[in-house]
Amino acid sequence: MAENPIRFGIMGCAKIARKLARAILLAPNSTLYAIASRSLEKAELFATENELPKTIKIYGSYQELLDDPSIDVVYMPLPSSLHLHWAVLAAQKKKHLLLEKPPALDVVELDKILEACESNGVQFMDGSMWVHHPRTAKMKELLSDPKQIGQLEFLHSTSTISPPPEFFKDDIRVKPDMDTLGALGDLGWYCIGSVLWAKNYRLPNLVTALPGVVKNAAGIILQFSASLHYDEPDLLKTVAIIHCSFLSHSSMDLKMIGSSGSIHLMDFIIPFQEDSASFNFTWLPKFVDLHIGWNAKPEKVVVANELPQEVLMVQELARLAEDKKKSVACPDKKWPQISRKTQIVLDAVKKSIDLGCEPVYL
Amino acid sequence: MAENPIRFGIMGCAKIARKLARAILLAPNSTLYAIASRSLEKAELFATENELPKTIKIYGSYQELLDDPSIDVVYMPLPSSLHLHWAVLAAQKKKHLLLEKPPALDVVELDKILEACESNGVQFMDGSMWVHHPRTAKMKELLSDPKQIGQLEFLHSTSTISPPPEFFKDDIRVKPDMDTLGALGDLGWYCIGSVLWAKNYRLPNLVTALPGVVKNAAGIILQFSASLHYDEPDLLKTVAIIHCSFLSHSSMDLKMIGSSGSIHLMDFIIPFQEDSASFNFTWLPKFVDLHIGWNAKPEKVVVANELPQEVLMVQELARLAEDKKKSVACPDKKWPQISRKTQIVLDAVKKSIDLGCEPVYL
Repeated sequence: MAENPIRFGIMGCAKIARKLARAILLAPNSTLYAIASRSLEKAELFATENELPKTIKIYGSYQELLDDPSIDVVYMPLPSSLHLHWAVLAAQKKKHLLLEKPPALDVVELDKILEACESNGVQFMDGSMWVHHPRTAKMKELLSDPKQIGQLEFLHSTSTISPPPEFFKDDIRVKPDMDTLGALGDLGWYCIGSVLWAKNYRLPNLVTALPGVVKNAAGIILQFSASLHYDEPDLLKTVAIIHCSFLSHSSMDLKMIGSSGSIHLMDFIIPFQEDSASFNFTWLPKFVDLHIGWNAKPEKVVVANELPQEVLMVQELARLAEDKKKSVACPDKKWPQISRKTQIVLDAVKKSIDLGCEPVYL
Repeated sequence: MAENPIRFGIMGCAKIARKLARAILLAPNSTLYAIASRSLEKAELFATENELPKTIKIYGSYQELLDDPSIDVVYMPLPSSLHLHWAVLAAQKKKHLLLEKPPALDVVELDKILEACESNGVQFMDGSMWVHHPRTAKMKELLSDPKQIGQLEFLHSTSTISPPPEFFKDDIRVKPDMDTLGALGDLGWYCIGSVLWAKNYRLPNLVTALPGVVKNAAGIILQFSASLHYDEPDLLKTVAIIHCSFLSHSSMDLKMIGSSGSIHLMDFIIPFQEDSASFNFTWLPKFVDLHIGWNAKPEKVVVANELPQEVLMVQELARLAEDKKKSVACPDKKWPQISRKTQIVLDAVKKSIDLGCEPVYL
């Protein structure tokens, strides 16, 4: 571990916090300094159940954690309807912010959070882990090389899960006063993010929800699909399809088809295993004579990673916090910009769903 | 070979006819009896170039081939705008009909062809080969078992090709007086067919073309996407996305996500190799504790086939022709019904494109 590791506080003991607690402990430049829940009992139970080191401070309220001047970064896995309030407070307390996705209910809210971060000189990052995996960088390398994938023509990104029946009664993601964006905020964040990532964070020109949206009785989105359309200067357009569902089994496909090659993977959000990940790469496939077969099969490209993707995320944020502390760099604007663009597209999908699948121009 | 093989005549020496000539020669119950082109020279060149047996009759006109009473089945790879005329004539001459896809320009035309086949007691089949592969039957087995895939929730089917530049000048598929349906007729036939196949040939309730349609100067569709939507009695809907393009590289993905499992393959129209084919099957995948990996990876299911899929198609048609000859069975209505439903959906996609991506209810 580094001599003076960046001190993280976890605010809210959601399930996902267990994964992040481990990541913060594993990252070479960070340490888990404190955790907080709405009651001391809950926070203590979380610490015990997850066998956290005894040295970690336990707070029975979020405010106490924010008031602790020793904490550099706050990881906030609260329901998204609480983000605006607590994230702004955290920024005002000069805490760098790792905010679970979706970071806000809409871009108006997100802008208030980002503005608070900027004016207080703290780094903002949302909790998207997959973008930190070296596999993602390797795929970007192929996407960026015009000789490999070529111009992107079609993208297809899905995120579906198969939660147990109690999820539909109790989970914060299906309750209107908690994560009011449902499958759009939870799963759609990844799919929209993957399309933006592939298109170098250019916004689509047109977003259209597709027929087949499913909501629960409270109006929370449980399943939806949408098309994201990019105009291009030449003949080729880029069409991206996203599909998200709480009513399926677990799947996370990302397929990118370009003019000369394609990439496909079935585990883009959470890799099948922790220590390496792969994707299928197909380049200039042709049919053999008589079209009775192919000259090439997809090639499996394996990318090893020493640290899991969530640890790489924590490490990157700790590095930025360290730079800020040493005054060698200002907060990196890349991360809030990525979140903001994702939220803009998410808002557009929401608007299109609300309008009964009418197209929304950006 | 069978003692009295069913005699095929090939009407039109298109490129695809080379594949079918080989298939007819390979099928155990058929023989290639004659070929015809618009000129004797063309037909002779085709026979020489493809080293066809010298015994095969060569005709310099389509009419002569149809007038030959020895021919049982006509394979017709003509441009789709010529199908109505020649397919009806073939049926009137009591020839069973293997009609290259798309079988007609619209369902009104197709109905005239099917009516001619029915009233003349001849079998109709379109040239979709992939449905005859034993892999397709194996996948259907999994789809039909409620314990395997479960209720279908999302389908994704693409067919894209990367033709050489001269294709866009000369190919019949981009000319308004030839295959006027462009990528919709050529590639869309497969994708629409795959969705209908997965849904047991139930028509979707709603068809919507997606923004991003690309046409050439003559108005022929070069690229399009569409969503096919199925209402279901319970919460779950089925959404199917199809995407087809002449402006990409060669890809043919079929992904089917159900409530408990999914199937994925990247070569559904033309298998990577002739003697066996595979698909990925994922069943009840779960994340391991902390969501740092999966408990299962997709399983590769390999299906061997003794005969290539196009030979199986010819064999099936020859079997039906044989049954009819022996008066043991009437023409099988399954095949014209499949073609008709595919054409109905194709018409709806066309209508939605023509209406600027308006939804079309079926």
